[in-house]
Amino acid sequence: MSPADQYPHIYPLTRPSVLAAHALVKPHIHHTPVLTNTTLSTLASTPQNKEALKGTQWEGQEPAKPKISLFFKCENLQRIGAFKVRGAFHAVIQLADREGEGDREKGLEVVRGRGVVTHSSGNHAQALALAARTFSIPAHIVMPSISTPSKIAGTQAQGATIHFSGSTSQEREAVVDKVIKETGATLIPPYDHPDIIIGQGTMAVELQAQAEALIREDKALSVAEGKEELDAVIAPCGGGGMLSGVSIALQGTGIKVFGAEPSFQGGDDARRGVEAGKRIESVKTLTIADGLRTPLGYWTWKFISKKDYVAGLYSVTEQNIKDAMRLVLERMKCFVEPSAVVGLATILYNEDFRRMVEREAGNKGWNIGVVFSGGNTTVEAISQIFKPESEVEAQREEGVVGRDGKKEVENVAA
Amino acid sequence: MSPADQYPHIYPLTRPSVLAAHALVKPHIHHTPVLTNTTLSTLASTPQNKEALKGTQWEGQEPAKPKISLFFKCENLQRIGAFKVRGAFHAVIQLADREGEGDREKGLEVVRGRGVVTHSSGNHAQALALAARTFSIPAHIVMPSISTPSKIAGTQAQGATIHFSGSTSQEREAVVDKVIKETGATLIPPYDHPDIIIGQGTMAVELQAQAEALIREDKALSVAEGKEELDAVIAPCGGGGMLSGVSIALQGTGIKVFGAEPSFQGGDDARRGVEAGKRIESVKTLTIADGLRTPLGYWTWKFISKKDYVAGLYSVTEQNIKDAMRLVLERMKCFVEPSAVVGLATILYNEDFRRMVEREAGNKGWNIGVVFSGGNTTVEAISQIFKPESEVEAQREEGVVGRDGKKEVENVAA
Repeated sequence: MSPADQYPHIYPLTRPSVLAAHALVKPHIHHTPVLTNTTLSTLASTPQNKEALKGTQWEGQEPAKPKISLFFKCENLQRIGAFKVRGAFHAVIQLADREGEGDREKGLEVVRGRGVVTHSSGNHAQALALAARTFSIPAHIVMPSISTPSKIAGTQAQGATIHFSGSTSQEREAVVDKVIKETGATLIPPYDHPDIIIGQGTMAVELQAQAEALIREDKALSVAEGKEELDAVIAPCGGGGMLSGVSIALQGTGIKVFGAEPSFQGGDDARRGVEAGKRIESVKTLTIADGLRTPLGYWTWKFISKKDYVAGLYSVTEQNIKDAMRLVLERMKCFVEPSAVVGLATILYNEDFRRMVEREAGNKGWNIGVVFSGGNTTVEAISQIFKPESEVEAQREEGVVGRDGKKEVENVAA
Repeated sequence: MSPADQYPHIYPLTRPSVLAAHALVKPHIHHTPVLTNTTLSTLASTPQNKEALKGTQWEGQEPAKPKISLFFKCENLQRIGAFKVRGAFHAVIQLADREGEGDREKGLEVVRGRGVVTHSSGNHAQALALAARTFSIPAHIVMPSISTPSKIAGTQAQGATIHFSGSTSQEREAVVDKVIKETGATLIPPYDHPDIIIGQGTMAVELQAQAEALIREDKALSVAEGKEELDAVIAPCGGGGMLSGVSIALQGTGIKVFGAEPSFQGGDDARRGVEAGKRIESVKTLTIADGLRTPLGYWTWKFISKKDYVAGLYSVTEQNIKDAMRLVLERMKCFVEPSAVVGLATILYNEDFRRMVEREAGNKGWNIGVVFSGGNTTVEAISQIFKPESEVEAQREEGVVGRDGKKEVENVAA
């Protein structure tokens, strides 16, 4: 079976379908704010210090001089602390509509009898558990038994049944198969599914409308000269469900969509895959941006590999992510997880991106929407991330931790 | 000279004066949001576990069962990251109006020739520097030479002249006197001044209006039964400038005002002083709530010691502050400094407060406004605060740090 057959969907993957999805999920999600921040827009519009480029691939080059106004979509303030509820609610509602052949209540009865299942130790698990609970559907979540206790507790608090597995993909899939055999539950995958992709795309519809309302209404706001629209949106790319959805949502608007990834240990698999013209199917990185450790899937590759959907992919270092995260925490006073800031890190520190904006936007500058994807981190994780490198080295020698202080398995779906 | 003669003011300390001050400062400050949070309101309305009361003065007692809806005034999102800009702008504008005998431009010319000065290593320093810069007034900030580099840099970035001093009150005041003698600058104290008190009070006017708008407009919001108003406001109390201002601002509204303090090393000086009927003039605490290490002043005592202004004062432990801070960071995704959460900590963990609410509010419950006073902390300070106690003990034995990882001087004005 091809993935297309495995996951039938009854609508085209287009902006109108995202708008329809938005109407479906809107009653169940928060309309998260879009914030601006003078300090960060000014910083983005200030050339980097030549010193800062030393040791990078841009050493010795003249720093770019883009003009940028930033609009932050705060999905860290979304229900369960991340955008994932959009896709989860959309998938559950679409599943009911399909099962009931358009009669949602009838379909929900069917789905209630079987349940839904997913394998995830992250935000998608909690999102699906919440969506299922909302419609009184049993949810089965397969998690590696080494998952952090707070994630297990968070998912249990949403009323889901946890099934523990080993930590490899094979071990997790075996448990999923067992659950499906025993219960008839439907698999709702974390990102590589049209329902999920279209659901996540709903955030772009809001971001566009909110940013443009801010530009119209707040005359004190410094924005791209003579423009009342967004020029671009940049979003983090892990499995690519959200980036694909955003790129579909903004088709025909003239707003360019960019993806941002961590470069650490090959975490920039989407960028490398697109460059090589072939999807990279396995990634093994312990980047601190732990929501972005996954490779693209069958569906997400279809969109992300096309220039008219995603105009470019850029990557940033662990230090770039840490620097951007510090700015967002300490200056914007927003509590975000590391994965959330790779877009901002790209804007501030990636000279290829900055030069591209300078070239394309010219003197007028660009209004850029930046997706803060989630805020599910802890004070302990933050302590670990900002620990002086000397202490981290000592821990690493003891074999205690990965880059973010956790022993993590590869390809854990976010 | 009595403090009253030293700081003449030309208006009564009443709600109408706060409303007038609000009109003066409004163009210069952010209208910070008031947020609600279902998780935290639910937690506040859930009796504490009996286990949690072990080892406290409430051990063995039946946990209180108050019903509470929370409305958070996010002054961590204020300019310079704290409410202090309200008082600083108000003081500078009032000074100009007094010097020009009502002709502000004429007064500003006089003030520009002399400058303003304060002694502070904290948020007030940056607030005064910003207010002064806005009106092209030279600002002199006296800081202990051991102040953290980020605070020094932050104040310099606002264009102020830094004067270093020793770290005792006497040493700092000596440098202030020297600056005044040399420049004719006017002292703008950090909290004990009518202009500052009335300026800080402006936040209560906004909080009241915003909370009541939320209650009217958001029908899904869980609020006190049949009520469209706030019942109470709780605010942190250090030097007491903000708490006094809030208590004046809410006179005649029927909204009760409460103050919250850290109990560590006698940091609850206001509560103890009011209980004893006599102001405590010196405090020496290294509480993690570093904005609240100061004793009340001449003016702030006048209001805080009166029951019809401040209905009650409550204190919380360091652990309570840490627990509340973790909730605000990890669950609300708001970046706050420890001082900001003592009000919430009181609501969640102080059984005297909780029993009082249960008694006064009965089955209907209370809508409580909670002031998040500021967000000026760093990832390093957070790492230090949430460090396992074992590591802190080791550092303490080495004499490296106080409770928050910094060597701090006593009575440093926030």
